[in-house]
Amino acid sequence: MQIAIAQLNIHIGNFESNKRKILNAIEEAQKQGADLICFSELATTGYPPLDLLDYPYFIEQANQLLNDVKMASGRIGVLIGAPRVNPELPGKNLYNSAFFFYEQKEIGFIDKALLPTYDVFDEYRYFEPAKSFRVFDFKGEKLAVTICEDIWDIIQDDPIYTFHPMDILMEYEPTLAINLSASPFHQDQRLERKKVLKANATRYDLPFFYINHVGAQTDLIFDGGSLVVGPSGEVFEEMPFFRESIKTFSLKELRERDGIGQVKPAERIEAIHNALVFGVKDFFSKLGFSKAILGLSGGLDSALVAAIACKSLGSENVHGLIMPSAFSSESSVRDAVELASRLKMTYDVIAIDQLYRGFVSELSRAFGETPFDVTEENLQARIRGMLLMAYSNKKGYVLLNTTNKSEMAVGYGTLYGDLCGSLSVIGDVYKTDVYLLAGFINRDQSFIPQSSILKPPSAELRPDQKDTDSLPDYALLDSILKLFIEKRKSVDEIAEKGFDKELVKKVVRLVNSSDFKRYQTAPVLRVSKKAFGYGRRMPLVAKA
Amino acid sequence: MQIAIAQLNIHIGNFESNKRKILNAIEEAQKQGADLICFSELATTGYPPLDLLDYPYFIEQANQLLNDVKMASGRIGVLIGAPRVNPELPGKNLYNSAFFFYEQKEIGFIDKALLPTYDVFDEYRYFEPAKSFRVFDFKGEKLAVTICEDIWDIIQDDPIYTFHPMDILMEYEPTLAINLSASPFHQDQRLERKKVLKANATRYDLPFFYINHVGAQTDLIFDGGSLVVGPSGEVFEEMPFFRESIKTFSLKELRERDGIGQVKPAERIEAIHNALVFGVKDFFSKLGFSKAILGLSGGLDSALVAAIACKSLGSENVHGLIMPSAFSSESSVRDAVELASRLKMTYDVIAIDQLYRGFVSELSRAFGETPFDVTEENLQARIRGMLLMAYSNKKGYVLLNTTNKSEMAVGYGTLYGDLCGSLSVIGDVYKTDVYLLAGFINRDQSFIPQSSILKPPSAELRPDQKDTDSLPDYALLDSILKLFIEKRKSVDEIAEKGFDKELVKKVVRLVNSSDFKRYQTAPVLRVSKKAFGYGRRMPLVAKA
Repeated sequence: MQIAIAQLNIHIGNFESNKRKILNAIEEAQKQGADLICFSELATTGYPPLDLLDYPYFIEQANQLLNDVKMASGRIGVLIGAPRVNPELPGKNLYNSAFFFYEQKEIGFIDKALLPTYDVFDEYRYFEPAKSFRVFDFKGEKLAVTICEDIWDIIQDDPIYTFHPMDILMEYEPTLAINLSASPFHQDQRLERKKVLKANATRYDLPFFYINHVGAQTDLIFDGGSLVVGPSGEVFEEMPFFRESIKTFSLKELRERDGIGQVKPAERIEAIHNALVFGVKDFFSKLGFSKAILGLSGGLDSALVAAIACKSLGSENVHGLIMPSAFSSESSVRDAVELASRLKMTYDVIAIDQLYRGFVSELSRAFGETPFDVTEENLQARIRGMLLMAYSNKKGYVLLNTTNKSEMAVGYGTLYGDLCGSLSVIGDVYKTDVYLLAGFINRDQSFIPQSSILKPPSAELRPDQKDTDSLPDYALLDSILKLFIEKRKSVDEIAEKGFDKELVKKVVRLVNSSDFKRYQTAPVLRVSKKAFGYGRRMPLVAKA
Repeated sequence: MQIAIAQLNIHIGNFESNKRKILNAIEEAQKQGADLICFSELATTGYPPLDLLDYPYFIEQANQLLNDVKMASGRIGVLIGAPRVNPELPGKNLYNSAFFFYEQKEIGFIDKALLPTYDVFDEYRYFEPAKSFRVFDFKGEKLAVTICEDIWDIIQDDPIYTFHPMDILMEYEPTLAINLSASPFHQDQRLERKKVLKANATRYDLPFFYINHVGAQTDLIFDGGSLVVGPSGEVFEEMPFFRESIKTFSLKELRERDGIGQVKPAERIEAIHNALVFGVKDFFSKLGFSKAILGLSGGLDSALVAAIACKSLGSENVHGLIMPSAFSSESSVRDAVELASRLKMTYDVIAIDQLYRGFVSELSRAFGETPFDVTEENLQARIRGMLLMAYSNKKGYVLLNTTNKSEMAVGYGTLYGDLCGSLSVIGDVYKTDVYLLAGFINRDQSFIPQSSILKPPSAELRPDQKDTDSLPDYALLDSILKLFIEKRKSVDEIAEKGFDKELVKKVVRLVNSSDFKRYQTAPVLRVSKKAFGYGRRMPLVAKA
């Protein structure tokens, strides 16, 4: 049997375009000689449709598309993920299902049994778990079909679910396993995914086809990388990352060649880089925008985001705004200009000093003479935010936010100032990884000026300010942040690992007391297992 | 038997203060002669603790408090809601449970069976559902204890769950039912709650004690109003709204007097008013702030929020900033000043024209001569946001947002401008209800000037602008919005109800295309069944 994998970029709500893509894929697979084509999880709606699933008219449109897919199945079998209306309440209104079509008929469906409801996942909000199980008989094979999470619990040290759906399906003696997924990128995901597939293939002694979604949905980046794995656990094929692909595999050949070669392991920083480039590109493409703007401070964070944006959108579509204040060093403007010229992007320079003095003067009438404090620091950041938003409004540019995860974590940023933007590009990248990414960007050609990389990080909001005036150095800070945010350790537990307890207390207090800022900031491209945004929900009035 | 209800305001994470409150309540109930005291759902942690539940040290602190409660139970039984660590994985790490203590011993526990996972609720994210059921024998009675959602499905037209926990508990022949709740306010909640209790009491022919949480957790306002209901379904007692209360009831008296009198129904606008006043007050109190600032435009929305803030915090703690532009009518400043003087709040006036011209002039060098458009409108709104935030920074005032739900819905507001603020006070109040609330505020004394109420709504961002230039009148707009947001109807379904289809299309398009703004705005005090915020999650790059 010849089995095609269609790894597509489905645009939530864009049913017309999605229909075209899916029907084209069916045609292409037939040309490739496939007997069966497999699509990803919720391929009719895109993933995650969130509360659009609560809108009956959205489900109707998905059902229409599903019917079109059925009519397009003729001499080729089609396996596709789609929501299924629960015909019998009580229960949630929907199942997260896979439909099997052949010769324009519905052969049957299966429902997802394990519904991830943690981090960025909320599936139990919408779906009822499977109540029954079955395999599909097709051209002499017995297909065990599962959906995403259904096969993941197998690698957990602390299993979440009380059973493995594949254990149940094995009673039907399947000859082949297919998993339809929508599994978002994080920097260790490629390795984990292979570990999962390997563990399943060997445990059940079956060839596994794993079909992943590709495409970015604002914060979540689906990276593709669909897999075909032999019963020995060896990877027969790893499909491309961050782009659509339709490819047909011979089951016979897979069985014969199983055990011959491994795909090389992933490189973490390169994967993050590629995910960010794709995340920006797809955000613009799905919203129908082409041009971006960002503030260039001469520092490393904005330089990195500029480089990523130029790679994503083309240099001609990225505009930089350089906005020096009285506290900016001369080298800052020089480095920003140098960066823009190396990246071949356009830029303007608008000094903010006069606007800043305008505000100070208006406010001094109300405040009287007061010492320079965070008010004046924030004024500068907010004037920059206003100028950037004015460009955004006047020219239709989309503002990219340049705050990194370390800053986001400790609240080191001005709400409505440098925290402005429609998309946070590196808000899930710790500062220590910002350096590594800059090194990756510069690997062949020096796009980011060395001086931006080497100079001590500073917000330049008061004379001779350095980030290290109020924060520990980033290597130390990031270690503490990871233990608190990713590992959920207490102050005491972190201190026990050899960190200064007062410092740990201070860092944890900063994180807890800045949740209110993160509540109001742009969606963050997720590249770790615990990003800020919907995946981390904290009560705002809790006592930290 | 004498049963005490403790309706407390638990501050998430503030274990020291919560311990004091709970132990004091036990002492007070003993003074009142109670045999048993009942606390609300998750009373050791407060509700909702959200992802703090993922932090083991948070659970440890809750367990310590629980142990203190056990030690405080002596001659009085204590029933209290608390998280319970799941001793046997697989499964979620916690149960949402109720513990029964007596004579410093743990008599037992029950777990919540039905876990709400919709709208603002995410319980399946954290908790495992009950695997077993029991009643508690205590002083000759058999207590059937349930937690919140466990008794709610009974009134649903479309039931969500496959069983009613009370049906199972009835097999143990209970003589009394107790429900520990944390059920947030919305404008119909008081009536629904009584309907639920009445339905349960009559169906199971049991007296019902319903203990609710009181206190606001940022967006969610828990209103108290705990209930004691006789087997006939009649309300024996409705405890106070929006404040803590500890009261003891005689079970014998309840049984004798059952069927004698009803509590009067709620008044919707008054309830919303009281919820908003309490929501603001408790937000400040839990964060340890006392002073608020807001922009006064002379319009109705800011006047209403000012009146609510003065009621919540005291007029001496509310400062208004009046920021006229060249497009402000003279009457706007006059009305704003008049409002401040009637509310006895302080205010400053800062004209924004010079700052505005500063930005226009700086930008004209980059933009050249361009026609006045949304850029210039937004500049004005953002200058105001900056001035307000400068006050907030310099003086430690908390900025209140004054956008109403109708504007929020259609994106009629400037991100980082009038959408600034730490808390959105009326972001869940439609404009049509803003008028009714203003009427309520003015019921005895005219706090809000008539001219602010009567003049046509306008953002005053360009000459002679009226909201109705680009929006239908609010009565019409709100009707469409409610059908789309609350009832989840499609354009066609709304049009079928007699609305102009092109208008409906336009409104729905505005709502869908402004999700990105709502993603970045302040938390909204929730007073309806579908507020913006975590309770409504929409994909940002979806094609609308």
